[in-house]
Amino acid sequence: MRFKFPLMALGLEITMIVLFGLFVEYEVDENIIQHHNSTSSASMDRFLELYPLFQDVHVMIFVGFGFLMTFLKKYGFSSVGINLLIAALGLQWGTIAQGLLHSHGEKVHIGIKSMINADFSTATVLISFGAVLGKTSPVQMLIMTIIEITIFAGNEWLVAEKFQASDIGASMTIHAFGAYFGLAVAGILYRPGLRMGHENDESVYHSDLFAMIGTLFLWIFWPSFNSAIAAPVDNQYRAIVNTYLSLAACVVTAYALSSLVEHRGKLDMVHIQNATLAGGVAVGTCADMAIKPYGSMIIGSVAGMVSVLGFKFLTPFFATKLRIQDTCGVHNLHGLPGLIGGLAGIVAIAMESSDMSKVAMQAAALGSSIGTAIVGGLITGLILKIPIWGQPSDQTCYDDSVYWEVWHCVLNKDIRICGEIR
Amino acid sequence: MRFKFPLMALGLEITMIVLFGLFVEYEVDENIIQHHNSTSSASMDRFLELYPLFQDVHVMIFVGFGFLMTFLKKYGFSSVGINLLIAALGLQWGTIAQGLLHSHGEKVHIGIKSMINADFSTATVLISFGAVLGKTSPVQMLIMTIIEITIFAGNEWLVAEKFQASDIGASMTIHAFGAYFGLAVAGILYRPGLRMGHENDESVYHSDLFAMIGTLFLWIFWPSFNSAIAAPVDNQYRAIVNTYLSLAACVVTAYALSSLVEHRGKLDMVHIQNATLAGGVAVGTCADMAIKPYGSMIIGSVAGMVSVLGFKFLTPFFATKLRIQDTCGVHNLHGLPGLIGGLAGIVAIAMESSDMSKVAMQAAALGSSIGTAIVGGLITGLILKIPIWGQPSDQTCYDDSVYWEVWHCVLNKDIRICGEIR
Amino acid sequence: MRFKFPLMALGLEITMIVLFGLFVEYEVDENIIQHHNSTSSASMDRFLELYPLFQDVHVMIFVGFGFLMTFLKKYGFSSVGINLLIAALGLQWGTIAQGLLHSHGEKVHIGIKSMINADFSTATVLISFGAVLGKTSPVQMLIMTIIEITIFAGNEWLVAEKFQASDIGASMTIHAFGAYFGLAVAGILYRPGLRMGHENDESVYHSDLFAMIGTLFLWIFWPSFNSAIAAPVDNQYRAIVNTYLSLAACVVTAYALSSLVEHRGKLDMVHIQNATLAGGVAVGTCADMAIKPYGSMIIGSVAGMVSVLGFKFLTPFFATKLRIQDTCGVHNLHGLPGLIGGLAGIVAIAMESSDMSKVAMQAAALGSSIGTAIVGGLITGLILKIPIWGQPSDQTCYDDSVYWEVWHCVLNKDIRICGEIR
Repeated sequence: MRFKFPLMALGLEITMIVLFGLFVEYEVDENIIQHHNSTSSASMDRFLELYPLFQDVHVMIFVGFGFLMTFLKKYGFSSVGINLLIAALGLQWGTIAQGLLHSHGEKVHIGIKSMINADFSTATVLISFGAVLGKTSPVQMLIMTIIEITIFAGNEWLVAEKFQASDIGASMTIHAFGAYFGLAVAGILYRPGLRMGHENDESVYHSDLFAMIGTLFLWIFWPSFNSAIAAPVDNQYRAIVNTYLSLAACVVTAYALSSLVEHRGKLDMVHIQNATLAGGVAVGTCADMAIKPYGSMIIGSVAGMVSVLGFKFLTPFFATKLRIQDTCGVHNLHGLPGLIGGLAGIVAIAMESSDMSKVAMQAAALGSSIGTAIVGGLITGLILKIPIWGQPSDQTCYDDSVYWEVWHCVLNKDIRICGEIR
Repeated sequence: MRFKFPLMALGLEITMIVLFGLFVEYEVDENIIQHHNSTSSASMDRFLELYPLFQDVHVMIFVGFGFLMTFLKKYGFSSVGINLLIAALGLQWGTIAQGLLHSHGEKVHIGIKSMINADFSTATVLISFGAVLGKTSPVQMLIMTIIEITIFAGNEWLVAEKFQASDIGASMTIHAFGAYFGLAVAGILYRPGLRMGHENDESVYHSDLFAMIGTLFLWIFWPSFNSAIAAPVDNQYRAIVNTYLSLAACVVTAYALSSLVEHRGKLDMVHIQNATLAGGVAVGTCADMAIKPYGSMIIGSVAGMVSVLGFKFLTPFFATKLRIQDTCGVHNLHGLPGLIGGLAGIVAIAMESSDMSKVAMQAAALGSSIGTAIVGGLITGLILKIPIWGQPSDQTCYDDSVYWEVWHCVLNKDIRICGEIR
Repeated sequence: MRFKFPLMALGLEITMIVLFGLFVEYEVDENIIQHHNSTSSASMDRFLELYPLFQDVHVMIFVGFGFLMTFLKKYGFSSVGINLLIAALGLQWGTIAQGLLHSHGEKVHIGIKSMINADFSTATVLISFGAVLGKTSPVQMLIMTIIEITIFAGNEWLVAEKFQASDIGASMTIHAFGAYFGLAVAGILYRPGLRMGHENDESVYHSDLFAMIGTLFLWIFWPSFNSAIAAPVDNQYRAIVNTYLSLAACVVTAYALSSLVEHRGKLDMVHIQNATLAGGVAVGTCADMAIKPYGSMIIGSVAGMVSVLGFKFLTPFFATKLRIQDTCGVHNLHGLPGLIGGLAGIVAIAMESSDMSKVAMQAAALGSSIGTAIVGGLITGLILKIPIWGQPSDQTCYDDSVYWEVWHCVLNKDIRICGEIR
């Protein structure tokens, strides 16, 4: 860490400033105002109208994802802290990467949609971060942020511009992509030494409550996530209502299944923290379609059940048989529900339209998202495996004190001694 | 719990999906658009305009109520977790129950107002939940959710449609109703074994800080709660301003009284967590009326003082003399301030209008809200008392480990042994 | 505390109610509606349009500032609790003080801008509170709230009306003012007994996580803070975008510098909690100007670095050489970045306009803000030093149990004994 991390971070920030200087402009500058006054004004009205939805998404990214990962007993600083770092860097790079791909050779104009999309692009990295949580260094996360957002932007461009596929809540391009990318990285970074578990890979009472802060803000604002860039007015309305209902149904079935699969009918906080959100992921692709209120509730109900079953049976299977250690279980919250979302999107398009080419394009979008994610994740994993990025030893995994000043004081014969842990 | 809880939860969710399939439609569907294009568009604009207020209310329900109840040292999982379950189920049932009562035989059209009202209907159950917190099972809460929202919807219909009474912030129909319903249930479920208190019926330092997360989000967004369904523009404006001022005044008097009644002038977190919110409850009924800024500050000041006095003197009296154990003191936060709100509404209507029949109707609304709450609560209490719903024993009250997996690890001669508590 | 605090609080609240009765009216009352119907309606539309931004600021004041200060291990109740008290009283007094100064002899009309400004005026006191945190009594904070907001309102009026200076995000009038006011108070209240530190003047693991709740909500909503009262539409747009980018850049450089200056390249939570916000402060004055996206990123990058360096080198220097004990390091989060903001504003105005008198006025605004802050802080400090306000002894500094009921239970030979600490 001594110099690699600060120098890499400073270098990246300088690069971002140079790139913004070269390629990014205000959406409204004086030239635009003079020529297209009315258009500009309408676009600005839309800016303020969408700003509350942007802020909801912003809370999800920084508070939601950040606190959701604080469940580990000794890894809260890293969870919420590195989450902030990844997202702050990622939204700058996402603005450039996505902006240039969609700008058709013009400069990138920063507006409310580009800000929402920049937040979205960081979500993919934060999902992948969940898969490798506790086993990587901040330097590795800076590298993953840059690579993953580049590949995400490429796939998103393919899905939106080439396949013309629907994916308004990004079940495929963000959730499935982020999950399978992270699983591929985790597979490459497999640590046999953690095969039998690690004493710090578990929660304590209060860390589980901190995680619920994340869960609840994600749950509450998910309708904004799925509708933020939907076409006004009807599509946006439906995206909000469908997501709201899917999430409500998902909570009830996730609780039911958690109790059903656990010892003596008890509830498990891991399921409650995660599976209750699967309905938001799964309804994403078809959130703005006229799938009927009860249709979104069915999608949410199924997602809640599948997600709990994933935590109970798939995660242990992944860890032991596939040699993929998925710290936060992102496969169950983002991977499987993202797949369900992609499939639901294909069905919804097929029922709505007789044009089979649209259905095929929708399927291609799902395939492309998972394919690029896995290939991109494998390559990224290989880069991160190079033993120069300060990754923690097996013993110091899941422990903040490797990368953070964690002071500890003890009373020794009436003399108080304070010092850094380890 | 083994099968009762999961089967009941799944059965309820399936029922909800069927009911939504039969009775609920989008507010905007193709037929409506074709015939009333301009109306639909205006209604959709209103949707996005009110959406930020809806999200504020959503935060209050899920984060506000959820974390407010985490003050108990060993009951945080249940507080925030069962709060989420009740609210997710309740908003589905509330959409149906309130929707059908107000739909005049048509289908229920889901829009921003029905979503706000659905959140409101869950608030009644969450208030009652506070009265019985720590002494009931998740199964009992599922049952209470369904019964209470049904009765709430009936009373709300009576108040709004028959009595044509004002109650914009729902001091009567939500706060007084929820409190007295909960107290009636708590009275029926009285546990003589907890007469002398329970070692887990208390807070620890960090649980009190978690509770403040709930307090603050409730406090901040209360103006949205009281104004969300007010008539635009002036009534909505006044509802926001009056609530904002009432709450500010309430904080100062609650702090003053807390220090006045406590040992050596100290402040008590229970008062700060709860009584600072009483101003939002008490100004509810007349929030959108022209009661003058200083009028709302008087209401808030009185509510803050009354609420602290309630915690100090009434709660112990209720527990010992009336045999009602009110875990969160909902009588002091919702009951008394709700009464003050109902009375303030009667006075405000009387001063504004010479039509005595309006005053009488307002009084009838207050009477109906408290009456149906008590009768409904007594009946619900009797149903919940049937000893088949998995209620905890006296000894395991206020303890998450009865219904949640709570793992605990100990070091025993260098060997780490992990197991479930109890 | 016994009677001084409650009587002073009640007296202040009664005073507020009387002042509101005399001087404050609704923005929309019946007379206004009759005469200027269209204007009133437009102003009310603006009310609802800005309401989400107001709520963002509201979250910053009550959750952001409140939890940011909970980092101390035994001072969380006071941090979040006295923060609430100061803000609730302060927003009432701020409405009056600022309102009367700007009302030109008319009554104060309470609207969304006055509500935003009232929240702003409390921010100055909360910043100063950070400098003296743990070393003052609630009574002292009530006094400081009234005095500081009065002086703030005077300086703000000077800056806005006399100097006609730009300061949209209030780098000068709130951040620099609040910081130097607080430092002056802390200087007067210097405690030689705490020269060697205090065992409670430090964080524990979970208190640092609580503080991150404050950090993140401040970080997320800062664009709303800097844009809430900006002129629609373009200025407001730029204020949002510039602040968003400045904060993102600031995070990356703050992390880099934290690692660079700390032992073995580790990160320090104090820096992450505070310095990541410096970009929001520093871009404040020129947030709504056309400083280019990369320009705001440069400002944010510099602020993040300067702030970390301040924590590392200036705070110890202040404590030992200048005899100013700055508990939260407000000089590094608000003072220095506020200065940078003021200077950036001067440069931006100079580059934009050839009118040197505007540049001079801008410089005068910076000088006035710092000058009145220091003089006001010194006077306030002398008043607070009078030994009748219940300030804590050196030994009981940074300890909630002086002003709060903090119960503690111990098991003693199978008998549980509960009692108040100390």
